[in-house]
Amino acid sequence: MSGVREEVTVSQAQRPLFVGVDVGGTNTKIGVVDNAGCTVAYGSIATEEERGPEDAVRRMATAIRELLAGKGLSLGDVSAVGLGTPGSMDIPRGLILEPPNMPHWRYFPIRDRLGAACGKPVAFANDANAAAYGEYWVGSGRDANSLVTFTLGTGVGGGIILDGVSIDGTHSFGSELGHIIIDHSDQARFCVWGGGQGELEAYASAPAVVARASERLATGCPSSVRRRLDAGEELTTLLLAEEAEADDAFARGIILETAHFLAVGIVTVVHTVDPGMVVLGGAMTFGGEASAVGRAFLARIRTEFQQRAYHVVGHNTAIDFATLGGDAGYIGAAGLARSLHEKSNQPATRT
Amino acid sequence: MSGVREEVTVSQAQRPLFVGVDVGGTNTKIGVVDNAGCTVAYGSIATEEERGPEDAVRRMATAIRELLAGKGLSLGDVSAVGLGTPGSMDIPRGLILEPPNMPHWRYFPIRDRLGAACGKPVAFANDANAAAYGEYWVGSGRDANSLVTFTLGTGVGGGIILDGVSIDGTHSFGSELGHIIIDHSDQARFCVWGGGQGELEAYASAPAVVARASERLATGCPSSVRRRLDAGEELTTLLLAEEAEADDAFARGIILETAHFLAVGIVTVVHTVDPGMVVLGGAMTFGGEASAVGRAFLARIRTEFQQRAYHVVGHNTAIDFATLGGDAGYIGAAGLARSLHEKSNQPATRT
Repeated sequence: MSGVREEVTVSQAQRPLFVGVDVGGTNTKIGVVDNAGCTVAYGSIATEEERGPEDAVRRMATAIRELLAGKGLSLGDVSAVGLGTPGSMDIPRGLILEPPNMPHWRYFPIRDRLGAACGKPVAFANDANAAAYGEYWVGSGRDANSLVTFTLGTGVGGGIILDGVSIDGTHSFGSELGHIIIDHSDQARFCVWGGGQGELEAYASAPAVVARASERLATGCPSSVRRRLDAGEELTTLLLAEEAEADDAFARGIILETAHFLAVGIVTVVHTVDPGMVVLGGAMTFGGEASAVGRAFLARIRTEFQQRAYHVVGHNTAIDFATLGGDAGYIGAAGLARSLHEKSNQPATRT
Repeated sequence: MSGVREEVTVSQAQRPLFVGVDVGGTNTKIGVVDNAGCTVAYGSIATEEERGPEDAVRRMATAIRELLAGKGLSLGDVSAVGLGTPGSMDIPRGLILEPPNMPHWRYFPIRDRLGAACGKPVAFANDANAAAYGEYWVGSGRDANSLVTFTLGTGVGGGIILDGVSIDGTHSFGSELGHIIIDHSDQARFCVWGGGQGELEAYASAPAVVARASERLATGCPSSVRRRLDAGEELTTLLLAEEAEADDAFARGIILETAHFLAVGIVTVVHTVDPGMVVLGGAMTFGGEASAVGRAFLARIRTEFQQRAYHVVGHNTAIDFATLGGDAGYIGAAGLARSLHEKSNQPATRT
């Protein structure tokens, strides 16, 4: 295990403790999280998808025990485990279905296997919904009752938390906000992954932004981006952000057009679940709050959202960047474990 | 009060009883509903918006008492009252805000005034969400855990019920599905009510269908519709449905194009909340299940939804017409009263 961060000793006030596991295509992040959402211990292991899920579950359980031992703790100190994995999945049955990047893990009952390996109840969630729960619990949305997240990267992920409940959906396909349609027409763009005509992901994911920029450049418009491509660099959203920061109008235009597509998607989702807060995270936020381009991107989203949304929600729905970064997934998974633990401790209620 | 329907005597097994009130621009429907969702007594009164809400609340309370008395019952037999009104509204505070057709009722605390007039707790909801709850409780969605409704008429209304909970939203603006955006472009249509560029209501409400048909006729395309307009008839969605039934290709095309817009909107909402079932109701269903045009309309929606949606939800999400018609609102309001009553009878749970 690499990247273990040593933190404070665990006091009684921090208990009960929870473990959050965030399975990614490359790395699996694991955190021991206290009852207030603070990380007590953190580490990551290589997912090594091709070695199969049985092997991965064994390594996860070992890593969890090691992390705890490093703090003088054991699984006896943990009340529940939370687990986020990439979709598709069957949440009620605890199954991974067919995530595109995990061909060796298909139809694996990961929730129950991890539960057996740890001897703990496991809360199971889509990774994007777990990240949304993290932002809701202790991140950007910690003061909101409800929130929606958009995670911008190689795809557009989504998470919806309403009054503390993750909207997983009847078929474990809730909160798939990259797949809302923003252009009904037969001229609409297709997702670079195939399918999904007119879907938000076809306009506002990193590959879609690159595709839009590339098509526009092919029309011959002037841009400082062109020099870097001629020098052999690859066209990426990071390169676009750098050139926009250096005042290239073309790069800036592509980024603000991305803000337009996102604002339209945000209006739709806010008119659907009216969450009180919208959080933008992921790798593609053009530098986020720390950069002028990131701030201009957010400002454009806010302005267009306010213009297009019904006035009550347009003027009262906060839109902000995420604050937990890559930690949101395991923290949120731990938060869902906490929620599961609390529910199992409640008195039974009649139906 | 007009339209009182006499029904069965109330047995002990039917209790507790609830009253549902559905306030519309013209009429207010009132029903006494038993614990299984069956209507025990029904009546309607003129809303007479211009006489103001104090007067209306007095007349509602009188009508409720009369309805009950007709069954040998009194308010002592009723556990709670449910009330649906047109938005905008502030649900937590029990206020009507600014419904377009109710200028004399603005900022009226209708929930508490009706509660005081009846001496009962009142569940307060948007009328479209109340109707969705009715379909969920005893209508088309009675076997579903979650459902989404689209109510097609002078606008496009929406309702979302997830695991028995109406998605009212942080600002009482949840489930406003007419206001999701299906065309992000600056060439998109505007709602006939003004504003709302690219919103579903600008394509699939009755006035939008008429506007689309009218624009297309102006281009000179052939249609049997033209003869009826020349004879002085008004262009309506009913006229379009009749001509489509008589095999007019133009009218049929307009209706199937409406199905396209709705299918796109349904994909978006299903990818957002994954409800398991979608119910289409309202005055503009082109004859519904009873007519060939209505069935073709539904078939086109289902086919395009299945083609565009992610396969797990595309193949497993039922889409059907509503079954309660104009009764859904008061029945659903009574169901929300029942839900409020059950919640208040549950043991307190820790937070």
